[in-house]
Amino acid sequence: MAHQDPVLIEEIGRIIGSDHVAAGSDTARWSRDWAGTVAWRPLAVVRPANSAEVAAVVRLANRRRLPVVPVSGNTNLVKGTVAEGALMLSLDRMSAIREIRPEARVAIVEAGVIVAALHEAAARHDLIFPLSFGARGSAMVGGVLSTNAGGANVLRYGNTRDLCLGLEVVTPTGEVMNLMSALHKDNSGYDLRHLMIGAEGTLGIITAAVLKLFPRPRAYATAMVAVSSVGGALRLLNRLQDETGGAVEAFEYMPRSFVAILLKRFPDMRPPFENAHDINILVELGARAPRDVTPDPAGQVPVAAHLEEVLGGLYDEGLVLDAVVAQSEAQRAEIWARREASAQILRLRRPVIENDIAVATDCMEKLIARIEVVTQAIDPKIENTGVAHLGDGNLHYVGWPSRDDPALCRAVQQAIEREAIALGGSFSAEHGIGLSKLSAMATHKDPVALEVMRAIKAALDPNGIMNPGKMIPDQ
Amino acid sequence: MAHQDPVLIEEIGRIIGSDHVAAGSDTARWSRDWAGTVAWRPLAVVRPANSAEVAAVVRLANRRRLPVVPVSGNTNLVKGTVAEGALMLSLDRMSAIREIRPEARVAIVEAGVIVAALHEAAARHDLIFPLSFGARGSAMVGGVLSTNAGGANVLRYGNTRDLCLGLEVVTPTGEVMNLMSALHKDNSGYDLRHLMIGAEGTLGIITAAVLKLFPRPRAYATAMVAVSSVGGALRLLNRLQDETGGAVEAFEYMPRSFVAILLKRFPDMRPPFENAHDINILVELGARAPRDVTPDPAGQVPVAAHLEEVLGGLYDEGLVLDAVVAQSEAQRAEIWARREASAQILRLRRPVIENDIAVATDCMEKLIARIEVVTQAIDPKIENTGVAHLGDGNLHYVGWPSRDDPALCRAVQQAIEREAIALGGSFSAEHGIGLSKLSAMATHKDPVALEVMRAIKAALDPNGIMNPGKMIPDQ
Repeated sequence: MAHQDPVLIEEIGRIIGSDHVAAGSDTARWSRDWAGTVAWRPLAVVRPANSAEVAAVVRLANRRRLPVVPVSGNTNLVKGTVAEGALMLSLDRMSAIREIRPEARVAIVEAGVIVAALHEAAARHDLIFPLSFGARGSAMVGGVLSTNAGGANVLRYGNTRDLCLGLEVVTPTGEVMNLMSALHKDNSGYDLRHLMIGAEGTLGIITAAVLKLFPRPRAYATAMVAVSSVGGALRLLNRLQDETGGAVEAFEYMPRSFVAILLKRFPDMRPPFENAHDINILVELGARAPRDVTPDPAGQVPVAAHLEEVLGGLYDEGLVLDAVVAQSEAQRAEIWARREASAQILRLRRPVIENDIAVATDCMEKLIARIEVVTQAIDPKIENTGVAHLGDGNLHYVGWPSRDDPALCRAVQQAIEREAIALGGSFSAEHGIGLSKLSAMATHKDPVALEVMRAIKAALDPNGIMNPGKMIPDQ
Repeated sequence: MAHQDPVLIEEIGRIIGSDHVAAGSDTARWSRDWAGTVAWRPLAVVRPANSAEVAAVVRLANRRRLPVVPVSGNTNLVKGTVAEGALMLSLDRMSAIREIRPEARVAIVEAGVIVAALHEAAARHDLIFPLSFGARGSAMVGGVLSTNAGGANVLRYGNTRDLCLGLEVVTPTGEVMNLMSALHKDNSGYDLRHLMIGAEGTLGIITAAVLKLFPRPRAYATAMVAVSSVGGALRLLNRLQDETGGAVEAFEYMPRSFVAILLKRFPDMRPPFENAHDINILVELGARAPRDVTPDPAGQVPVAAHLEEVLGGLYDEGLVLDAVVAQSEAQRAEIWARREASAQILRLRRPVIENDIAVATDCMEKLIARIEVVTQAIDPKIENTGVAHLGDGNLHYVGWPSRDDPALCRAVQQAIEREAIALGGSFSAEHGIGLSKLSAMATHKDPVALEVMRAIKAALDPNGIMNPGKMIPDQ
């Protein structure tokens, strides 16, 4: 293969051991993206054992001007690990959970720890690491930090950046930057932690982190709720947040179209309500206090009774049209199964148009209405659906155009991005930029912010070796 | 005066109106720090009306290589606004609260809005902007963001950076960077917002912000609690957080020495307990749900009953030695008065040594013990006290040395910083760096992080005009 360079492979092998350098066909498992839509040929895949080895490899790459693409679980959706002719730096061997400090509620972990493994380790202390999403069995800490991953619990616990207290980062010039504190207050200089989080590996390689843990909810109250409008859903959310002190763990929107597709694809699934409704919300509250979780003599859990009471009041006000509160773990699972089926049903047919957009919560109603208008204007026969983390203002739009025409798909996607931007929103809420959203960055990102990003990139990575071509569009 | 430059004053006057440029003796109110420990002579004080004017003034300053020191309420404690020979850029005229969007729970404000004014505006919507501290009647939004201010509510609501969704910043080259989103999820590029927050005006001037609002607690349960150890206090905190889903609004530590000084200084004040205890904690829970705040037939508020119940359980376990739960608003005020008197009593005598340090919560017990050891070793007759935001791991140490000796004071201060650092802590938890902590930055900050800070500063502010000399120590 064109990319083979035996001398380089040997040199890296001397740093990290030749068993931990793969080249040629041995790189196959790192040579394609998760969805299988793009493939590449890396120069080599390098699997260091610790941050000193990472730093040594990066110094070598910086001297030789070799592109470096960090990879952990390789589950990103925006072509963020495309590595044609690059050194791929896989952190999968750095998978130690160094320490869990239950009193301080922190975990100190290496970047190669798989998210699900951290879940299990936290559970042994009756704690949770709240970040969770479909790829949790493969995604690693370094990746979720580098992409500031989202998911269904952001409403309650924040984005990944909000779950991180400290970082260790190998800089593009191969130095180890130690920001590994477990502090809740630290005003000693620029917040380099937040700069590195979400930088998609373009400013350095995250090698370790201090992450927050939280007490495990002991009971959940979960409901499907039909409301009369998206604005009404927001009022429901605010009411529940007020009454529970912010205990809403999930607030997920499923439109009528989504439920219809779901029931068609899974005929055994029960509809959420006897009559179909336009706006269906999955609400989940988490509770921990004994008085919230200890069942009453009739067997009802107080937090569920509380949810029923709030929903009853809103039903009387005409805001809630129908509601079903889960009375058992099985019923809770049935409610969640509807939401979690989205990953399967939304890719049922090709071509499919997907947008990961965000607006302020009070603009969501308008956004959804505008999307109908602008997509119909481009393709009157388009089939629109989607799901939303409504509490975060994050809509995952999905549309199937009436014909297989890339220009049409692009036009629809861009029209939707424009609507989000017009409402002060973002064209990339949680998936990031990678290569996939570069043109949207060029079009929609504030030009001064883009210049500032370029200046920071040039200052920290003067040779442009770190994940080159990703995130920042060319001038 | 040496610093007068009539031509410059006139040129700035043409940009923003001559009424809004002060020079010479007219700059008096901006020419000293809050504590009155340092004075300076600015070139001029410039008071623009909007971000376009800010940008035009900064462009002028950048062309002429004039230092620019932004100032809002001028209440910082680390000499962050010292402006000898500099243009001071006061944002006090940019004081519009542009919009409050109660459904989205955001306020859109200019940088010159006084924190207390935002409190009042939020209250009209039955919402709160939770950041609060002694200087709230003078401190402005631009200042609290630039310094990432802390305070007593960080435990519940986070630092100032956690309260900010969007920013507008004038860069050191005089361009307006628009990051004014109200989004909870936005993965479109580097997080420049967090880079600007806490940068103390060295990377640009914050001119506007989108801030989070929260529902107002409808009832509080407030108690003074004596516990057997600092570690036991942490267990109490964790227990309360678990049982209330994170409703602890304040968890403030007052040692026996603090209470003794307090009672000596304010003889009318009642002691918190009949018998003096080593470790006294102010605990406050906030509640909103009707079932937590509606008094029972006996007049007791459920959230207070719940606090009593938890404290009773911990008393039986031997962890709580004594506790008094406020039964009225007057009793709550009495409890808070003890904590809030700290600002007065801690500056009673000079010389005084002050440290604003942080460690992880599970290291606080060790930190406090070590401080006793190392300070006694330097000055056996030193009188130590302090208060702590214990839930954040933030200790405000105060010590009165046995003699007025600057070298002794410095030795004590540095020994305490070293103890915090040795425990993985910070020498500046919430007050920032300014000029006061530059030598601690040089000594304790990770050297790679310092280099990264310098590289970013040079990239964004090539002429070094923005608040020069602050935060980043010379090489």
